[in-house]
Amino acid sequence: MSTITRLSQLVERVKSLPKKRIAIAVAEDQNTLTAINEATQMGFIHPIMLGNKDKIIALCEHEKIDYSRFEILHFENDIEATKEAVRLVREGMADVLMKGLVNTDKFLKAVLDKEKGLLPPKTVMSYVCAIEVPKYKKLLFVSDTAVLPFPDLDQKIAMVKYAVNMANKFGIEKPKVALLSAAEKVSPHFQSTLDYAAICKMVERKQLPDCTIDGPVDLFLACDPESVEIKGIPTPLAGEADVLICPSIEASNIFYKGLMLFAEGELAGLIQGTIKPVVVMSRSESAKSKLYCIALSCLMSEE
Amino acid sequence: MSTITRLSQLVERVKSLPKKRIAIAVAEDQNTLTAINEATQMGFIHPIMLGNKDKIIALCEHEKIDYSRFEILHFENDIEATKEAVRLVREGMADVLMKGLVNTDKFLKAVLDKEKGLLPPKTVMSYVCAIEVPKYKKLLFVSDTAVLPFPDLDQKIAMVKYAVNMANKFGIEKPKVALLSAAEKVSPHFQSTLDYAAICKMVERKQLPDCTIDGPVDLFLACDPESVEIKGIPTPLAGEADVLICPSIEASNIFYKGLMLFAEGELAGLIQGTIKPVVVMSRSESAKSKLYCIALSCLMSEE
Repeated sequence: MSTITRLSQLVERVKSLPKKRIAIAVAEDQNTLTAINEATQMGFIHPIMLGNKDKIIALCEHEKIDYSRFEILHFENDIEATKEAVRLVREGMADVLMKGLVNTDKFLKAVLDKEKGLLPPKTVMSYVCAIEVPKYKKLLFVSDTAVLPFPDLDQKIAMVKYAVNMANKFGIEKPKVALLSAAEKVSPHFQSTLDYAAICKMVERKQLPDCTIDGPVDLFLACDPESVEIKGIPTPLAGEADVLICPSIEASNIFYKGLMLFAEGELAGLIQGTIKPVVVMSRSESAKSKLYCIALSCLMSEE
Repeated sequence: MSTITRLSQLVERVKSLPKKRIAIAVAEDQNTLTAINEATQMGFIHPIMLGNKDKIIALCEHEKIDYSRFEILHFENDIEATKEAVRLVREGMADVLMKGLVNTDKFLKAVLDKEKGLLPPKTVMSYVCAIEVPKYKKLLFVSDTAVLPFPDLDQKIAMVKYAVNMANKFGIEKPKVALLSAAEKVSPHFQSTLDYAAICKMVERKQLPDCTIDGPVDLFLACDPESVEIKGIPTPLAGEADVLICPSIEASNIFYKGLMLFAEGELAGLIQGTIKPVVVMSRSESAKSKLYCIALSCLMSEE
C-alpha cells in the first residue's frame, strides 16, 4: 500500500474502499449536510440521517441537495436521535458516528454511556488531527488537539498508540513520533519531559507499538532537518516527524490553529479510543476539512 | 509616528534614530559578528566587542568583515568579559547588552546579579517575540516564548505590561491584547483562564496600561475576523490582535516555531524587564531574524 502524504490522497484512498455507513446524530444542520452530500456524491459513504425529517428535507431543498440517496430516520428529540445513532454503530449497523446539530455535551454523554456507549471501560478518549501544510512534505498527526487538557502519562501513552495506529493506516509502517516540548532537555520543572523519557524507554522495551520515537524535542528538531544539523543534537526523527505529541491542549490547540490561519493548513480530525470512529466537526472548519474528517473516519473504520 | 507593521519597517525606523551602543559579551562568535557587521554597515549601531581580541580579528578576517569600525576590548576570560559588558550597560556607557559565545547560564548569571546586574529587584524577566507572517497584516507580539515556563498571575501581568509597552514603541497606541487558551470559556480546570479573567478586570479598572484586551480566547477569535463572525462570540479583539499572551512556554514555543517553519515567519526577540534591552539570539535563527533582534533592541532602548 502506498503512503498517504496529502489529504487529497486520503479521499482517493477511501473512494477505493467499500462504502461506509455513517450515522449522523441530529442531521438537520446545513454544514453537516453539505459535507455529507459531497462525500455521498463521491461515492464513499452511505449516510443514515437521524433527526427531524421535515427539517432535513427542507434544508436539502434549500441547498439544492438530492436527498434520494440519504436514509432518513425521523426523531423529534435530539437525545433520542443521538442514542439511536450510537446504537446503530454499537451494534454494527453503521461504521461511523457523526455529530450533527446536537449539543456537544449531550452527544458525548451518549458516546460515553457505560452500557450503551462506544468507549470500552478504562479506555482513554483522545482527539487527533491529520494536518497538511504546503511547506511540509508529509502529513502531521497532531495529538491531542481537543479532548485531553493536560494528559498524564497513561493518557500520553494512549495518544502515542492511537497516533501510531493511525499513521499505520496511512501506509506509514514505522512512523516517526516526536514528543514535543519547548526544548530538548529532560527537566523536573516540566512533567511532560519526564513522561516523554518514560515513553521512549517503553518503546525501547517493546512495551508500545513499533515506532521511531524521541522526546523531549522542540518543533525544529522534530520537523526541520537543517535545525537538527545546526543544533548538533542527534535524533532519529531527523527533522522528519510524522506524529507530534503535544504536552497540553493549550499547546496543541494554539499550534494547529496557527497552521490553519497562517500556513494554509487543512486538517482531518477524529475522536480516538471509541470502538468505531466518531466525527465531531467544528463549524469554523473549512468545507475541505469537513470532507477530510469524513474521509478519515472511513479509513479508520476499516478493520 | 506611523505604525510599524513589518520587521523591515523596524529596521528603517532604527536607521532614523540616533546610533545605539551595543556591548557584546564574548564577541568571538561568527554568527554574532555577521549580524553585528550588517547592523553596523546599515549605520544604526556602534558595537563594543568584549572578548578575545585575536580571535575576534581572526574571525573578521576570515569572514572578510571590516573591523575598523568595531570597538574591541580584550578579555581572556568569558565571565570577566560578560561582567564588564553588563557594567557598561548598567552605567550608561552602552545602550544594549548582547550575548556572544558565552554560555547562556553564565551570561544570565551576570545579568541577574542582584548588585551588579540589569534586573531591578522583584522584577519579572520575560521574553517576547515580534513575529511577522505574510498571512497576517500586522506584527504579532508573542509572549513568553523563552523565559517563563508556566507564568503565574503576577508574571502574566508583567507579560501584558511589557508587550503593551513594546507595541506602543511600534506606534500602536492602544494595542489589542489576546489572552490565549484552547477555547473561550473560563474554567477552573484551566488556571490560565482564571488569570485571564482577572487581568481583563484589572484593565477595566485601569490597574494596567491602556489596551483593548480579551481572554480566554482561542487563536481564531484572536486573529481571524471570519471566525469571530462564525462563532458569534463578541470580542473587542475582532480577529485583529497585536499581542498574543500564551499560557505556557510549551504553547508559545511550539506555536512560534510552527510559524517559523511552516508560515514563512520571521521574528525579532528580546528579553524584557531589564533596565536596558538584552539580546540573546539562538544559533538556529535566520540571518534576517538576527538583524531584526538587534534592531528591536535599538528601538526598545529609546527612552
